[in-house]
This record gives sequence, structure tokens and C-alpha cells, in this order.
Amino acid sequence: MVCTLVVYDTHYGNTKKVAESVAEGARSIEGAEVVLINADEVTQDHFIKADAIIMGSPVHMGSCSWKIKKCIDEICAPLWMKDALQGKVGGVFATGSGYGLAGGGCEIAMISMLANFAELGLIIIPFPKSTTGYDLGGVHWGYYVRTMDNNFKPTGISPESLKAAQLHGEYITKIAKSLRKK
Amino acid sequence: MVCTLVVYDTHYGNTKKVAESVAEGARSIEGAEVVLINADEVTQDHFIKADAIIMGSPVHMGSCSWKIKKCIDEICAPLWMKDALQGKVGGVFATGSGYGLAGGGCEIAMISMLANFAELGLIIIPFPKSTTGYDLGGVHWGYYVRTMDNNFKPTGISPESLKAAQLHGEYITKIAKSLRKK
Amino acid sequence: MVCTLVVYDTHYGNTKKVAESVAEGARSIEGAEVVLINADEVTQDHFIKADAIIMGSPVHMGSCSWKIKKCIDEICAPLWMKDALQGKVGGVFATGSGYGLAGGGCEIAMISMLANFAELGLIIIPFPKSTTGYDLGGVHWGYYVRTMDNNFKPTGISPESLKAAQLHGEYITKIAKSLRKK
Amino acid sequence: MVCTLVVYDTHYGNTKKVAESVAEGARSIEGAEVVLINADEVTQDHFIKADAIIMGSPVHMGSCSWKIKKCIDEICAPLWMKDALQGKVGGVFATGSGYGLAGGGCEIAMISMLANFAELGLIIIPFPKSTTGYDLGGVHWGYYVRTMDNNFKPTGISPESLKAAQLHGEYITKIAKSLRKK
Repeated sequence: MVCTLVVYDTHYGNTKKVAESVAEGARSIEGAEVVLINADEVTQDHFIKADAIIMGSPVHMGSCSWKIKKCIDEICAPLWMKDALQGKVGGVFATGSGYGLAGGGCEIAMISMLANFAELGLIIIPFPKSTTGYDLGGVHWGYYVRTMDNNFKPTGISPESLKAAQLHGEYITKIAKSLRKK
Repeated sequence: MVCTLVVYDTHYGNTKKVAESVAEGARSIEGAEVVLINADEVTQDHFIKADAIIMGSPVHMGSCSWKIKKCIDEICAPLWMKDALQGKVGGVFATGSGYGLAGGGCEIAMISMLANFAELGLIIIPFPKSTTGYDLGGVHWGYYVRTMDNNFKPTGISPESLKAAQLHGEYITKIAKSLRKK
Repeated sequence: MVCTLVVYDTHYGNTKKVAESVAEGARSIEGAEVVLINADEVTQDHFIKADAIIMGSPVHMGSCSWKIKKCIDEICAPLWMKDALQGKVGGVFATGSGYGLAGGGCEIAMISMLANFAELGLIIIPFPKSTTGYDLGGVHWGYYVRTMDNNFKPTGISPESLKAAQLHGEYITKIAKSLRKK
Repeated sequence: MVCTLVVYDTHYGNTKKVAESVAEGARSIEGAEVVLINADEVTQDHFIKADAIIMGSPVHMGSCSWKIKKCIDEICAPLWMKDALQGKVGGVFATGSGYGLAGGGCEIAMISMLANFAELGLIIIPFPKSTTGYDLGGVHWGYYVRTMDNNFKPTGISPESLKAAQLHGEYITKIAKSLRKK
């Protein structure tokens, strides 16, 4: 048994779509129980029950969205005080307009989520370059996909990119399972 | 004439107290008009009218607070789309429990605010080492002060540290004034 | 009169090519004196004489190259001790393989150079979204261009992208000139 | 069996002293083989043989030292091309003058080392708040200790702080061992 929590915020539905693929990948691990939930609805209990925590955010103004940050400040911070999540496993993903062909701020967006994970004592799983589909969107910190073109028109997300998100969820859950067994 | 906007979020009153000192420093520049306002109440107009924007946040879980992030996402992002603030001047400050004697996450907290400033095209003013009081609290990115001891008991903020905050506000406003005159 | 220093490290010649465009842009400002120099050869005097400092690096393993870091540690650090560069103007640029379509680590590469600038007390000029060519390569922290395709084959740099680098050098020099006149 | 590699750069001997404590902690895990080596001397083979990689740097101008960066660029980068280190475990530590009581740039110093780890696909172990001695020096990203006072005079490192470094090495090695057994 291993329990993976996928928490996300979404504005146009893109981060939700990626979250669903991440969750699907997590579910492919034998014995995995996966909770996919919006940052507005997640509770302390969801975090406490999880072995792996995967957090996803739209990139807004070069960092994570305020709803993800609200979840971090109000749900995670009290768990930090109690050292309640130490030793669990964590990973991140993000989506964004990506204007500029250079990630559009996805690094600091991911690092602000990873700062929370490090504070909580989570073991951080990056996004390995060898993952199929990394070339279609990814930085070392986590999965990333661009969802708009240079005219700020939505482009959707390709099945190949969603497959990479799936592999991200699968890989993180696999490591959480290994660590559970000890 | 030069207009400085000081926007802050506060939980226990510490960031507000620093914001007041920053504003006081800004006011000491001849011809300065200073607006001191909570992130909950600031409007797009406040940003548009300002020559200098100084933003302050408590450090929460290793980045800026969700209320500062909400202000960035909802008030600043639409101004980014319009390139409405390019060429203005910006600076940041933060307060935190500082557990660990190593800044407690103040760098990424400041960098997530600076990411917003860079997106908006603001000219970023750091916190020079030569500022009187830097040794009592400061990193290169901005003014910082620790407000709790190692038992998470509030310590208050010394007058010497508040003086450094004042100098930060004064210095940023002075540069904004120089650039206005061209 | 305004003096702009463009310091770069280069491995395959790409960062040098961008540096030349940045320098060309700086030279277009009336009265500008521009020094274009490799990080290996730059001296403390070059930094002391400059009004604007523009630093460019290849992205290596998610941060700036070791030769840029050596220049920072050996040439800039002694100037930091003396507060010798405070109030000057700074900006950054980077090139990289960009594998993953998400900037390939350019943010932390630029932020590690900007950390040096903030330590030195430099006024930091970001890369405004409104710059012509930003869409071809850019993040808010500075100019960036991808120089390899997904098979790690060199692609060269388009004239349109080099034009954006030129505008970056021009804009930074213009602000340095404004601040000189006071 | 588990193999831990501790790589460091040192200028005044402080980072070396911490590295020795980290190595001592690693050695306390049953079956651990520990290699303690200067960044100047480490080879690709050292990285390939290790299960856990712990990297330590002085903080210079707000990021890691150029010798650590040289090691990353010349020794680690070729291993990244081959995906040779994916799935190993990594952690970081740093020392610095800490002028300003706010970490003196230790976050970006650690994050530039962690960027390398994420690129390599390493599983990142942070520094849990519950570690004895965290209050004497630590941020969530890794162990940190200040080695100078406000007059830039060396202060040495207390035995209590070195004990925290030891626990850091022990904890990282313990997790690497767990993951080896699967």
C-alpha cells in the first residue's frame, strides 16, 4: 500500500488536466491509493494520510498561484510546527503561458512549492531528464507544460506531454512505496 | 515630486511596523508623497500612480504570504498584461520567525516578490551592505528582521533595526526621484 | 558620458555572440563607451570604471558557468568588501541548450548572477516583456536564448533574437545614463 | 552496504570541518562506506560509486563557490548527459560569514547546488526542523553555519552545531540505505 495525494490549483483547467494525468500515473503503481483534490478543498488529514504529496500550480507572475500559497500557509504551516510530515515524499508540476520560450517563471514557481516541502522535511523527487516526454516540457525541478502560444491563445496540451505528467506521478509514487517498505 | 507606495501584509503586526518605518524613510525625501496600505486594500490605481513600489511580507513556509501573492496575482497581473508599470522602481522587505539563524527562508520569500517586479519591468533596488543597521538584519535582496526567538516567542523589533528599514525606504525613494527627473 | 561593461563566458561561442549584440545595443546610446570582455580577462578596474555592468553566462547544470562564478568570487568579492560598486546599474543574459522547452535552468542561472549584483548594491534592470523579440527568448530576469534543439544539435541564434539582446544592452545603458545625470 | 560521498570546497577550513562532521555522521550508519574529498580532487567514478552525494560550499557573493561550480560543470555535467546518477540521494550544506543575521545568501548558494542534483535526477533530502541543533544554524534546504561575527572576525563552529552537521550526514545516508534495499 502507498497513498499519493495530488493537490492542484487551476484557472483555465490546464493544471487540473495535468493533475489528472499525474494521478493516473500514480494509480498505475500496484497498491496505490490516490487522492486528487483542489487546493481549496484539501485538509490537514489528506496530507497526514499521504505517503507522497504532489503539488501543481499555474505560474502566475513568476511564482505559484495565491490559492496554492494559501493552502501552504493555512494547511501545511500548522503541520510544519508539529513536524507531522517529515520523511514523506514530494514532487511538483506547473503549467503556464510560457511567453518568452524560457519557462516563463516556472523555476521560482516550483521552488516556492519546494521550499514548503523542504520546510516540512519532505524528500524531494525531481523530474529526471530521461523521462519520456521531458523534451516536450520539463525542467529538472518538475514537470512543466506551456499552454498558450505567443499571442496568449490557448494551445491545449498534447497527449505526449500528458504522458510525461503520468510518468512523473508514477515515478514519485514508486519511490514513496520503496521507502514505505524500508 | 515622487510617489512611493508601501504595500504590506501582516499577521502579528511586525511587518506593519516595519512598513511604517519604510514609509517614514520614504517621507523624508523632499517632495515625496507616500501611500502606506495593506495588500488587502491596494488597487491598480495605487500602483499606477506610484514611482516607487515597496512590498513587504511575512515569510511563511519559505516564501511570501498568500495575501501578498493574492495581491500580485489579482492586482499586478492585469497591469503586467498592459506593460503599465515598466520603468518604475521597486524594493522589498520581510519579517519572520527566522528559526535556524539562517534567514528562515527570507531569500525565496523576497525573490518571489522580486519575480513579480521583474515581470512588471520594475527597476529593482537591493539592500546595500553599507546601510546602517544591515548587520542587525538584512540580506542583499532586501531588509529582513527576525521577530521571534528560538522558542517561537515574539522578541519585538529594535529601534536600530527599524532605522535600517527607514533608510531602505529613503534610499529607494531617492532613486525613484532621480529617475523621474531624468 | 556613460560606460557599460559587458562581461561574458562562452563555450561554443553563443554567449559571446549575444554579448556582442548586447554591446552593440549599449554603443547606440549617445556618449556611451562600451567594454566587451571575457570573464577570464576582466579586472577590478573594469568594474570600477563602469556605470552599467551586464553579465552573461551559459546555463550549466541549472546555474551560471564556473568561469563566471570565478570572476564573481575573485574580482567582484573584494569590491563588495569595499562597497565600491554600490548604485551602479546591472543586468544579465544567458544562453543554453534549453532541453525541455522550459528554460533549462535559466532562472537560477540568472538569479545566481543577480545575487552577486544585489550583494554589490547594483540597481537591477530586468528584461521588460514589451521588448521586441522577448517572445523569441526571454524571461523577466534577463535575455535568454536557446541554442540547441531537442537532439542537442546547435541551432544558431536568429537575427531577431540578437536584436532583442541589442535592445537589452541599449535599455540598461540608457537607464545608467539617466542615473549618472541625476 | 551503502556508499556516501562528501564533496566540499573550503577556504578558511570551516567548510572542511563541517564536511568532516557530515562524514562522521554518515559513517555511523551500519555498513556505510564514506568518501570525504575536496571538490578539486573528486572524479566521475566517486559520483558513480556513491549511493548518497552530499555537497558543501562556502557562500560566496550569494551563491556557491566557483570551485564547487567547476566540479559541477566538469565532473557532474558529463554524467548528466548519460543519466548516470538518476535515483541516487543528495543533500547539501554551507558555511558563510552570515553578515546581516539572515543567512547571508545561503539559500541561493544551496539552491544552485540542488539545481545540479535535480538535473542529475537525485532524490533531494532537506534538513528537517526537528534535527537537534537546527536552531543553531539551518535552513530547510540544508545545514548552514555562520563562521564570522559582525566585524568579519572568525568565530569557529560550536560542537553543538557540528553535531547537527553529523545528524545531517547520518540522516541522508540512512535514507540512501533504505532505498538501496528497496
